[in-house]
Amino acid sequence: MKLEKLVGERFKERPSDCVVDSHALMVRGGYMKAMANGIFSSYMPLKRITQKIENIIREEMDAIDGQEVLFPVVMPGSLWEESGRYNSIGKELLRFEDRSGAKHVLGMTHEEAAVHLVRDYASTYTRYPFMIYQIQTKFRDEARPRAGLIRVREFTMKDAYSFHTSQEDLEQYYMQCYKAYENVYRRAGIPEVVAVKSDSGMMGGKVSHEFMLLTSIGEDSIVICKDCSYRANMEAAECITENVRDEVSAALELVHTPEQKTIEEVCAFLGADEAKSCKAVVYQRNSDDKYIIIFLRGDREVNETKVTNYLGFDIHPAVITEESGITAGFIGPKDLEGDFIVLYDKSLEGLNNLICGANKDEYHYKGLDMERDLEKVEYHDFAKIPEGGICPVCGKHSITIKRGIEVGNIFQLGTKYTESMGMTYTDENGKSQYPIMGCYGIGVGRLAASVCEAHHDDYGPIWPISIAPWQVHLCAMRADDKNVKAYADSLYNDLQKAGIEVIYDDRQVSAGFMFSDADLLGVPVRVVVSPRNMKQSVIELSTRDKSIKESVPTENAVQRIKELVNELLEKCR
Amino acid sequence: MKLEKLVGERFKERPSDCVVDSHALMVRGGYMKAMANGIFSSYMPLKRITQKIENIIREEMDAIDGQEVLFPVVMPGSLWEESGRYNSIGKELLRFEDRSGAKHVLGMTHEEAAVHLVRDYASTYTRYPFMIYQIQTKFRDEARPRAGLIRVREFTMKDAYSFHTSQEDLEQYYMQCYKAYENVYRRAGIPEVVAVKSDSGMMGGKVSHEFMLLTSIGEDSIVICKDCSYRANMEAAECITENVRDEVSAALELVHTPEQKTIEEVCAFLGADEAKSCKAVVYQRNSDDKYIIIFLRGDREVNETKVTNYLGFDIHPAVITEESGITAGFIGPKDLEGDFIVLYDKSLEGLNNLICGANKDEYHYKGLDMERDLEKVEYHDFAKIPEGGICPVCGKHSITIKRGIEVGNIFQLGTKYTESMGMTYTDENGKSQYPIMGCYGIGVGRLAASVCEAHHDDYGPIWPISIAPWQVHLCAMRADDKNVKAYADSLYNDLQKAGIEVIYDDRQVSAGFMFSDADLLGVPVRVVVSPRNMKQSVIELSTRDKSIKESVPTENAVQRIKELVNELLEKCR
Repeated sequence: MKLEKLVGERFKERPSDCVVDSHALMVRGGYMKAMANGIFSSYMPLKRITQKIENIIREEMDAIDGQEVLFPVVMPGSLWEESGRYNSIGKELLRFEDRSGAKHVLGMTHEEAAVHLVRDYASTYTRYPFMIYQIQTKFRDEARPRAGLIRVREFTMKDAYSFHTSQEDLEQYYMQCYKAYENVYRRAGIPEVVAVKSDSGMMGGKVSHEFMLLTSIGEDSIVICKDCSYRANMEAAECITENVRDEVSAALELVHTPEQKTIEEVCAFLGADEAKSCKAVVYQRNSDDKYIIIFLRGDREVNETKVTNYLGFDIHPAVITEESGITAGFIGPKDLEGDFIVLYDKSLEGLNNLICGANKDEYHYKGLDMERDLEKVEYHDFAKIPEGGICPVCGKHSITIKRGIEVGNIFQLGTKYTESMGMTYTDENGKSQYPIMGCYGIGVGRLAASVCEAHHDDYGPIWPISIAPWQVHLCAMRADDKNVKAYADSLYNDLQKAGIEVIYDDRQVSAGFMFSDADLLGVPVRVVVSPRNMKQSVIELSTRDKSIKESVPTENAVQRIKELVNELLEKCR
Repeated sequence: MKLEKLVGERFKERPSDCVVDSHALMVRGGYMKAMANGIFSSYMPLKRITQKIENIIREEMDAIDGQEVLFPVVMPGSLWEESGRYNSIGKELLRFEDRSGAKHVLGMTHEEAAVHLVRDYASTYTRYPFMIYQIQTKFRDEARPRAGLIRVREFTMKDAYSFHTSQEDLEQYYMQCYKAYENVYRRAGIPEVVAVKSDSGMMGGKVSHEFMLLTSIGEDSIVICKDCSYRANMEAAECITENVRDEVSAALELVHTPEQKTIEEVCAFLGADEAKSCKAVVYQRNSDDKYIIIFLRGDREVNETKVTNYLGFDIHPAVITEESGITAGFIGPKDLEGDFIVLYDKSLEGLNNLICGANKDEYHYKGLDMERDLEKVEYHDFAKIPEGGICPVCGKHSITIKRGIEVGNIFQLGTKYTESMGMTYTDENGKSQYPIMGCYGIGVGRLAASVCEAHHDDYGPIWPISIAPWQVHLCAMRADDKNVKAYADSLYNDLQKAGIEVIYDDRQVSAGFMFSDADLLGVPVRVVVSPRNMKQSVIELSTRDKSIKESVPTENAVQRIKELVNELLEKCR
């Protein structure tokens, strides 16, 4: 491919609307163009990258006996009504009517389609286990698309669905898929991706993992134990607290706390530690705005996912009205009256001598004793684990929190979909059973952007050769020089004949211009042919990551370039 | 791949809802499953077929310097408003609103997206010509999906867009693409596809061709000259008539024709030739139901496409009400009164002594003379060319009409989209110009179904090896026989090591069952290992099309199979 003919513009300046580097570099480099909020077109370099990623994924899925299929993007609403998700998923599921008024959805995930495809076929135990997958366009009507390809509305995804006759078989296959995912990330050039335990959310099921690229621009908080192998998404990480009860419980005392509304203000005002306070956080149920009041220790934060999972419905931060009966800023568990759902976090269990709101304007209590002053309450884990918190596995205070981009996920779904959609098989004993499912996703565009986040400098991406748009970037400096042009042309042909993917820049532009374009395209191997090195009968060979830079005699050029390409490819195996 | 593990059911009986063979065989063979009207999922065999077709297309598009890109499936309505198609296209364009109420469409073609992607980049003449293409899911909300993959609502399509600075350059590239298309069909195993002139319809532009597979189940009528190379879609075929005027014009005479409403009835009643009559066909404008009356010779049929193109708006067959002022069954051009659009077909030009309606219940005229009895009228070509009609190129009465499936189309679009969307470039003289576009489409699934239509028998498809789901179908007859199983297993491994795609059937089922499954999968090369031929140390090698059947000594088996696979592959080059 001649660079001169490559469709797409390259820019020097960082676009002002790009908050992450991968987005900025992929816009600057002519990889993509926004068409609408969270909807992009891809130019040829990005298309080549994603195609290579897709092929890596395809090989790894085929290696674990996956069968590639294709589901529709547009699906009938009736199919999603069978699973119940037509109504249970929020606005991110795009629903519309066709010309005849029939309800349809745009696929954001394909559990229903997978069950539909196999439920007649897989009617007897002898047909299990099996896995089907597709690589297909998906649409998720995100409220806030962001960060270029990291969070978009339309995206290409590999989604796989496995079907089993026992939990053990699912678990065994789940581990195979786990390893296949590690292979994908290694081969795509980001072996540093880690698997973390995750919350299964709207997918259903119990055990699930997310594969995370740890980076400061990540949207997810990842809980990592520095002492053992424990890793989890914040949403799913158990928060353990060592609750130490004072030996003596002081008497409950009403104190005047004018204008001290936040727990920080109150504790400062009363000279108390936040860990010795009981704070309230208020939400409302999405469906009817009913209030949910969560009490937890003053130094803890609410983990909304845990609350939602416990309640089984969606919530949002509350707007506290005058009519609500809630005394905003002074809410406490004692003498709280009204039709609220009240929850207690484990961080409060057994504690005494706490400060809390008195449900009365400008007043708090001192000396609250959870055991003495409240009727019997149930405590559950609703809190985020803090930096330095206790590891749920090794029990040490060794938790650290990092940011991560989710570049894949795997779920043990169980029978959620097969039960709701009436898919059964006959077992060895002639008994009807529900198959057990797993599902496994990787977003292709997000993976490309994540590799760029992990491997770039100020001048552009540094693509691993396994997914780079081309393997070799050939620069003919001063292509107006006959010798340069003739040699570079023949090298271009020879490299292509040798099966190497070459992007060839023979434009008559300055060296600076040429190199900045090459940096933006991020091709791993660079070859420079120039009047000066023609005189010495050499070419200049280097790598985009600057680890290699050498002069190679022209007679060995093809041979040495091929060698280097193969070396780099070998590293991504 | 072991057949036993292949997900999908195979049936013996033809499904009652399948009207064409490709649909019936692809359902019976476990290639696809309907999810909704015109919306299908593909099982692995079909996915493998379409992927091979996509790769052939990709290679041919790359060979004519196409750059593969990717456009979104979901596009903002505002982009389609720029070209005017948001409003001009009917209900087949699926429109919906996202969560924020913004208008969107599902892409059925991507001219707007192509212009959007390149209009900033291609701002100067030096960047031309170029071609971009994608292979992507499309959605067209067809009123009447039919015939399996022949006419669906969701489909995968290769769509390409070229941009030029002169009509000559477009025409030269158009011919390159024309040849690339011929390559695609040849390589996919249907070299018999022919290019025909077509109507450009909603795409805009003037010159266009459709690539047609001639088959009785086709939806299109194809006009073919038996004497010269003229071929056209009926929609676009010029209808020439030799109008011979009688030497003497009889007087105009009102005749009573009770209950004779159709032109056939009236002519029979009056003992006249239909070619000596003037019939009326009535339509209504879609937007406001205004009536359009077309007069043409009694032995001609209206070509709606020609009428629509002439009028510039969409029409539908009329419902004639009492208030319309139209005397249904007795409509004639003389003394026709009312606010109608009246059109005359060339088949009437200069004729006399015609029968026609008298615009009066139960009365017709005899002796109508188009020149004498009507005010000056304009004649245009609104008729379908008939069997035996006059070839517009060689002038002989050599026209024959066949049915065809459209398996691709190419359009010289001109500046319709670049003008309406304000895409310009600066030419050599610094002047602003609109680029000239071409566009080029191939439906992947429809092509697969068309190959099946062209190549099948009662028992299943006969896939050309270039697109077959596998190259070799290995049958181990009586896999309970140790020798058979051991040899077949080792042959399976050896063939795979030799890079051959094998589907391996080692189920313990009857020969009949095994072969009928093999016929349904349509794999071109079949290898049978059985107790009987094990005794003779041979395998049975045959082709699905029955052209080859031979015994091969086991020691030569891999070698000979490889040879045969390569021979077949060579034929599809």
